[in-house]
Amino acid sequence: MAQQILLFVDLGGVYVFAIEGALAAVSHRLDIFGVLVLSFATALGGGLFRDLLIGAIPPASISDFRFGVTAFAGGLTVFFLFAFVHAIPAPLLLVLDAAGLSLCAVAGAQKAQLYGINPFLSALLGGVTGVGGGTIRDVLLAQSPKVLHADVYAVAAIFGAAITIVAQKRGLRAGPAGLLGAVGCFSLRLVAAAHHWNLPKLA
Amino acid sequence: MAQQILLFVDLGGVYVFAIEGALAAVSHRLDIFGVLVLSFATALGGGLFRDLLIGAIPPASISDFRFGVTAFAGGLTVFFLFAFVHAIPAPLLLVLDAAGLSLCAVAGAQKAQLYGINPFLSALLGGVTGVGGGTIRDVLLAQSPKVLHADVYAVAAIFGAAITIVAQKRGLRAGPAGLLGAVGCFSLRLVAAAHHWNLPKLA
Amino acid sequence: MAQQILLFVDLGGVYVFAIEGALAAVSHRLDIFGVLVLSFATALGGGLFRDLLIGAIPPASISDFRFGVTAFAGGLTVFFLFAFVHAIPAPLLLVLDAAGLSLCAVAGAQKAQLYGINPFLSALLGGVTGVGGGTIRDVLLAQSPKVLHADVYAVAAIFGAAITIVAQKRGLRAGPAGLLGAVGCFSLRLVAAAHHWNLPKLA
Repeated sequence: MAQQILLFVDLGGVYVFAIEGALAAVSHRLDIFGVLVLSFATALGGGLFRDLLIGAIPPASISDFRFGVTAFAGGLTVFFLFAFVHAIPAPLLLVLDAAGLSLCAVAGAQKAQLYGINPFLSALLGGVTGVGGGTIRDVLLAQSPKVLHADVYAVAAIFGAAITIVAQKRGLRAGPAGLLGAVGCFSLRLVAAAHHWNLPKLA
Repeated sequence: MAQQILLFVDLGGVYVFAIEGALAAVSHRLDIFGVLVLSFATALGGGLFRDLLIGAIPPASISDFRFGVTAFAGGLTVFFLFAFVHAIPAPLLLVLDAAGLSLCAVAGAQKAQLYGINPFLSALLGGVTGVGGGTIRDVLLAQSPKVLHADVYAVAAIFGAAITIVAQKRGLRAGPAGLLGAVGCFSLRLVAAAHHWNLPKLA
Repeated sequence: MAQQILLFVDLGGVYVFAIEGALAAVSHRLDIFGVLVLSFATALGGGLFRDLLIGAIPPASISDFRFGVTAFAGGLTVFFLFAFVHAIPAPLLLVLDAAGLSLCAVAGAQKAQLYGINPFLSALLGGVTGVGGGTIRDVLLAQSPKVLHADVYAVAAIFGAAITIVAQKRGLRAGPAGLLGAVGCFSLRLVAAAHHWNLPKLA
């Protein structure tokens, strides 16, 4: 039961990220193949890169077809129901994206821990899981990754991942620790977006 | 004997893709080192990425020096015999490229199957093997990958890979199934190029 | 003792490359997060890619936190002591960079050899270790990698890696062979930079 809820939540995050990738593809006037590629890359690229790094090979997104199918479903939704998706209010999309980010970051950090990566790098890998897909999407569109320029985004992912890891080290079980980290990431991301918080720059 | 023919065909595909990578490098005014890098990346990048994903490590292109040597031979051919290569008529290059694509796609899908990847994702990995090298080449030239924009190209690769996998599931042996898939990919690619078929776009 | 010196030298190279990555990030007006990402990617990306290819998973930069910490220290140095770093004379930076390149190339080739990669490809992997980080940095900044365009740079890395491998095959121990290769790479790089040597281009 808990397993099934987790899988459902996970696939929900994949679906949201896939829709964002597909929207970027459409706005760059790619055809339906390009839309599906960007859906897949945006939704699954971060986890795939993490799995390569920690030695979880083949990556979950390659060994379990449900992830790929869900990502493509997101791309097809955008392609065939564009008017509908386009009408989603921006704030709702921001909230869904923050939820997907939180989920990826926490799950990424926990998987790295399971594979014996040290806590400091596990938190970073949680961040990579959260923002990796968007980074690959931007590189494929020949843009410098938004995550390098945007408001507090990757930092929120690393923050949530770190909370999860610290909570587990202090004895919390994976479930509550993950929930705590996800709430932390989600809150920081939304507060930062609402206030247009940015990290400091030189000069 | 069959092994030797297969290796010969395989290296032929590497050579064709290496020449295309080198031509792109020359047209971007790279020096001979850049030409060799793009030859290697274009010819072997797709298979290398597939091998990372399925856990065939070290990748064939790293563990068998014949692949690297053939890729560099393609680059050197362009550099030292540019007038000759430049005179290849475009239709012949298109046919050679379609042949290389077919070969990579089919071989990529079969290797993924061997490593226990499910059929749906094996077909996608066949496509990745076929177009991955060109994608890496374009990223290194700071361009959005042509495969995201062009006529039916990656789709032909996935089509051929899928035919191969279905044929093997239905009991055909690897050889005939691969031939069938390669013919499918090759035909679809050439017909699509001749008719300028494109996939649908939004608006 | 020798181990400790080696580790110290290695971390020194990471620190130098991290500073260069951070300087590129600052000149592209990235915030402190972007500075840290580019520090990490530039300093550790080449070795990370090599480790993926040879099957040394998880990569050293992921399994040993000292590498990541050193890379971030380089980024923070630039961010908080920018006036100081900015005042480093260009020739000194060139010499430090050449030293870092030599070290990465030699260490990369030796590690590939340890993992059973053949000598020809080990020399190439030494080159990849040396220039991979800078390549990833440039891709993240949506630029065509400088190494494809610049003076003799990657060639110096491959040259040093090849010297090391040949020396070891001839019976030299790892230490002296590595030193010989590093001196070769370092000298070639500096002589090439001083004379603005470039590799030949077509037309």
